[in-house]
Amino acid sequence: MPKEIYYGEYLQLNKILTAQQPESALNGEDAHDEMLFIIVHQAYELWFKQMAHELTSVINILNKPEVNDNSPDIFTVVHRLKRIASIWQLAIHQIDVIETMTPLDFLDFRDQLRPASGFQSFQFKMLEAMMGLKFTDRHGKNFYRQHLKQEHINMIDEVEKKASLIELINRWLERMPFFRQTYWLSELGDANTNLKVEEHPFWAEYIKAYQSTLSTQDESGMASFRAAMVNDAQQGRLTTKANRAVLFIMLYRDFPLLQIPFQLLDTLIEIDDLMATWRTRHISMVRRMIGARTGTGGSAGADYLRESRDKHLIFSELASINSFLIQRNNVPVLPRELQSVLGFSA
Amino acid sequence: MPKEIYYGEYLQLNKILTAQQPESALNGEDAHDEMLFIIVHQAYELWFKQMAHELTSVINILNKPEVNDNSPDIFTVVHRLKRIASIWQLAIHQIDVIETMTPLDFLDFRDQLRPASGFQSFQFKMLEAMMGLKFTDRHGKNFYRQHLKQEHINMIDEVEKKASLIELINRWLERMPFFRQTYWLSELGDANTNLKVEEHPFWAEYIKAYQSTLSTQDESGMASFRAAMVNDAQQGRLTTKANRAVLFIMLYRDFPLLQIPFQLLDTLIEIDDLMATWRTRHISMVRRMIGARTGTGGSAGADYLRESRDKHLIFSELASINSFLIQRNNVPVLPRELQSVLGFSA
Amino acid sequence: MPKEIYYGEYLQLNKILTAQQPESALNGEDAHDEMLFIIVHQAYELWFKQMAHELTSVINILNKPEVNDNSPDIFTVVHRLKRIASIWQLAIHQIDVIETMTPLDFLDFRDQLRPASGFQSFQFKMLEAMMGLKFTDRHGKNFYRQHLKQEHINMIDEVEKKASLIELINRWLERMPFFRQTYWLSELGDANTNLKVEEHPFWAEYIKAYQSTLSTQDESGMASFRAAMVNDAQQGRLTTKANRAVLFIMLYRDFPLLQIPFQLLDTLIEIDDLMATWRTRHISMVRRMIGARTGTGGSAGADYLRESRDKHLIFSELASINSFLIQRNNVPVLPRELQSVLGFSA
Amino acid sequence: MPKEIYYGEYLQLNKILTAQQPESALNGEDAHDEMLFIIVHQAYELWFKQMAHELTSVINILNKPEVNDNSPDIFTVVHRLKRIASIWQLAIHQIDVIETMTPLDFLDFRDQLRPASGFQSFQFKMLEAMMGLKFTDRHGKNFYRQHLKQEHINMIDEVEKKASLIELINRWLERMPFFRQTYWLSELGDANTNLKVEEHPFWAEYIKAYQSTLSTQDESGMASFRAAMVNDAQQGRLTTKANRAVLFIMLYRDFPLLQIPFQLLDTLIEIDDLMATWRTRHISMVRRMIGARTGTGGSAGADYLRESRDKHLIFSELASINSFLIQRNNVPVLPRELQSVLGFSA
Repeated sequence: MPKEIYYGEYLQLNKILTAQQPESALNGEDAHDEMLFIIVHQAYELWFKQMAHELTSVINILNKPEVNDNSPDIFTVVHRLKRIASIWQLAIHQIDVIETMTPLDFLDFRDQLRPASGFQSFQFKMLEAMMGLKFTDRHGKNFYRQHLKQEHINMIDEVEKKASLIELINRWLERMPFFRQTYWLSELGDANTNLKVEEHPFWAEYIKAYQSTLSTQDESGMASFRAAMVNDAQQGRLTTKANRAVLFIMLYRDFPLLQIPFQLLDTLIEIDDLMATWRTRHISMVRRMIGARTGTGGSAGADYLRESRDKHLIFSELASINSFLIQRNNVPVLPRELQSVLGFSA
Repeated sequence: MPKEIYYGEYLQLNKILTAQQPESALNGEDAHDEMLFIIVHQAYELWFKQMAHELTSVINILNKPEVNDNSPDIFTVVHRLKRIASIWQLAIHQIDVIETMTPLDFLDFRDQLRPASGFQSFQFKMLEAMMGLKFTDRHGKNFYRQHLKQEHINMIDEVEKKASLIELINRWLERMPFFRQTYWLSELGDANTNLKVEEHPFWAEYIKAYQSTLSTQDESGMASFRAAMVNDAQQGRLTTKANRAVLFIMLYRDFPLLQIPFQLLDTLIEIDDLMATWRTRHISMVRRMIGARTGTGGSAGADYLRESRDKHLIFSELASINSFLIQRNNVPVLPRELQSVLGFSA
Repeated sequence: MPKEIYYGEYLQLNKILTAQQPESALNGEDAHDEMLFIIVHQAYELWFKQMAHELTSVINILNKPEVNDNSPDIFTVVHRLKRIASIWQLAIHQIDVIETMTPLDFLDFRDQLRPASGFQSFQFKMLEAMMGLKFTDRHGKNFYRQHLKQEHINMIDEVEKKASLIELINRWLERMPFFRQTYWLSELGDANTNLKVEEHPFWAEYIKAYQSTLSTQDESGMASFRAAMVNDAQQGRLTTKANRAVLFIMLYRDFPLLQIPFQLLDTLIEIDDLMATWRTRHISMVRRMIGARTGTGGSAGADYLRESRDKHLIFSELASINSFLIQRNNVPVLPRELQSVLGFSA
Repeated sequence: MPKEIYYGEYLQLNKILTAQQPESALNGEDAHDEMLFIIVHQAYELWFKQMAHELTSVINILNKPEVNDNSPDIFTVVHRLKRIASIWQLAIHQIDVIETMTPLDFLDFRDQLRPASGFQSFQFKMLEAMMGLKFTDRHGKNFYRQHLKQEHINMIDEVEKKASLIELINRWLERMPFFRQTYWLSELGDANTNLKVEEHPFWAEYIKAYQSTLSTQDESGMASFRAAMVNDAQQGRLTTKANRAVLFIMLYRDFPLLQIPFQLLDTLIEIDDLMATWRTRHISMVRRMIGARTGTGGSAGADYLRESRDKHLIFSELASINSFLIQRNNVPVLPRELQSVLGFSA
């Protein structure tokens, strides 16, 4: 006979519901809203743990020596990334609840928390690192080093050493199983052929079609295209080879083999957007709560958040490839044999 | 020099982040989604604790021997009830996150949790009791007794013995400070006068005006009015005397003294609506997850939720008073001296 | 040189922004909130038109003599149904905006609108009919006939005569291209073989596995399974043959060929859930606004909405199939040749 | 007998539902998603009209020679501004629906709309002007002049000439009825007394208390305080005199007379935050849709939106006053006679 599980024990509510110890109470005061402050941050940390759980599993899947198109791998990756997006939406919504706290109510206990700060959430910084943010790209590097415990810095450093999501996405894009199996496409910038990208019939045709769409205002369009798609150098987080795969997926997403990869790219862009929205709401909330003062952690108030909103985007290059799309009726028709490779066997 | 607070210690993350022990892992399996199941329920329990914190403070304020119109009391009550409404909106949103779990993924660990069930959340049942749900009004009373631990039943029973929110609201309505101080209004059904409600000039006028608005389809309108507003007997959770105060506040909400009381009534109705929406979403989620089967706790699946959605409304009588409103241009004009009592002293 | 388009002309704002004529203004009064009432209903009608646009295109795709697995058809269907789900979420949110109108403010103009009622939205009723609600299944049939204009009744009747979404989904499920091409699966209840469903090796194995999962509380489980999956009669909107396809897709959704079909089923269930939530919010809103009175259209207030919420679900049978799932490690392993049919050709 | 109103005629659906004429259809193509593009923009314009309706009524109320604390005026203003906030939340949500359109689907009709652009929404620009954005403070002034029709520029100019919401708020703050009636407070920077602000006992005490809260990191805190609250010059949209009223309301919001004014300030800050979130979502959406290209209107893509997000905040100064709050237990206790002025007469 199986053991009986009881809800409260299963959820370890003895830990969860005893972890709220307001500083104001310890100091003999009663700052009613400190409970809200504690609980909302604990809820955030729970969700950060959940997102790390999902990200870890996604990274493990993509870390396999070979991702098989006929396995559930990419389908599972998309499903779990969509869950992460769903959790970010909830995280944004949680700010509505914090904002029921007024500045005056916050002041009742705020000074007792110094120098604690949400900035010290190592789980959040690990999430950023897992997705692909490097220490060197962080805004406020020194500040970051000073305010985190060494053990947490070490943990984040460990994460940084491993392959990040964006790096694995880049690798998967560069050698999508389907690309390797297809002679016609294997030439798409593959170093093994002597063909230059622009000499390849597909890209030659595409470049011509793209050029004709550029308005006079878009003078720099072709240069941007070449920088992102043709030149050898890696400018940002994605290689030109990966960028070509991104464009190919976006153009031919209607073929069965590319439907789920298209959803994958779309979900990554969505996660970036949600994180930017979260930072924007966070900025407004801080401005509302403490005006122009420095934050509890001594960070320069809303400025840190504003800078990181712009600098900490991870997947913005995926979205930027959309600039290079052309109208559907000008998109090159794929050779019949390639079309069949992109479909089901039946 | 004050002690330094560190974010992770302040939030007791050593407890919060170590409280996730999937049963499937204990059983040597790997049910990826069990983590989500645990975390979403823990997040719910955190928010239930926060709502209990707010409700307790609201009840304490209303429990004072005397609520003073010139104190911040009712303003604070409204503020905290609005926060509870805000948390319910978040609680509804959390269902979106659970629904990223598919039925097949749930089955991976579902049987290992028996007979644990969200039904066993004693915090949720305490919230219901604090608001005013009595054991005798609960759907599935025996089921309830059988599935909760005795210690939790006792805790809920203790809460039931104390004055609930709806009872305190009823008392506050019956003897709003302003009502007691005002001769003209003190007669509104006050037992100390021999005047019957209908003989009182205000209500005599209002009843006449109300009657003229009834369409032939509303034949029962006047009987409903009398049952709710005039007859002595208490039919539901509010007395007829309290109901008259509700109607008075709704009609004259534009006067300064009634502006915040109006927001109070509106917020209580909103909380009821949000809880009904939460139960509806919960029903859909269970139907999606386990179809017509019995729940892990053995409850008859979605049926329990459906019944409780309709039977566990607490403040629906407040909303029903809206039936008795009449058009603004027919609303009796208050005597000048009463108007001044409803305003500021300046 | 192409013509120049101007925003306001393109959107025909001369029509859109001149279509608000409050009755109260015509009657020489100024009911401030009537503008909100008009605009929110106009916004609903715009979104109903958009949903009809999407539904029409989805129905046209599914109405093709043959849906090809290697075409973008099902991918497009899913994409557009997800958009419909997204619009329903917005429609639910719009109720928050209506609820900023108080009952007293509504009374300022409510009587001047009789007998107009949201019940008379023929677009909404056409949406229900397009999805698959039949006149005979409508709650309040006579009421419906009496309050709609004959021309609108005729339009809805026309829609009813055509194949509805649920009927086309049933057909697509019954003869999924892949099912027809596969000898092994073609036997799954196919009338062309003499094999009974239960004699088929796959279903024989599955029935056995399913039976072993039934707890003693689920006594009726096997009878429900047989009614839904095996017996010939069509009980609800789906045939037993279609139901078997539903179960198969849910079980083997990880195979590439079934990934998008799985999303299709999931999205249909979600649309049903959203419409139920919309009706629930609508019920609460009406209760808040007019209490227990009859609606402007004379409908029995919230009762009509409550009944239709339960009776007008279209895709609930899809969700109920989840009852018949079993744990993944007991799911029959498919023969290798079948597995390859479910994958890409590469 | 009153005339009978029919839903579809009341809403003028003959206009609303015939105002969708896709350019792609005119050009003999079928760009399925153009309908969505049209409808979502029409829905925005409906909501802009509704917000203008609310803003106009709010401005009319505040434009009265005298706002009476014992009238429903400020209560009504708060109610309608909260509705505007609620509509902005919906407007933000609408972006979720637009984002179901993929870049490739947008390209199907995008070029046919040139040079139309959401930038040409004169209703939106009128809303900005009504709230208080001046032409001289607009980002991209020349661009603005070039792309709008002269008649629309004229309409916006007309609005600019009238008192804007922020100007009327400033006036109301400067001469809050209560301030004028109160000797003690009339001195708070009133030009009629010779007392300097800093010599006034209340402010002398407050400045001292505020100074003691400044950490060494907040060196500039006192200078900011003086600039905002004491010096004569008007730096931004609010005068120092109005700023002092803001701070006073925030500090003493618990007194009945200041409860609704506090909600007013809070709602204005919320509207600013919502508009900033809307612009952020708009930026992400444009980046997703057209990458780095120029928008249909020729605006420099997302850059215009990014600049205007930061420059077009209207009420940010209200939020910045929160910087000058001090802990509740250090807030000066008001003289008893003043306390009574802040309360009800009873």
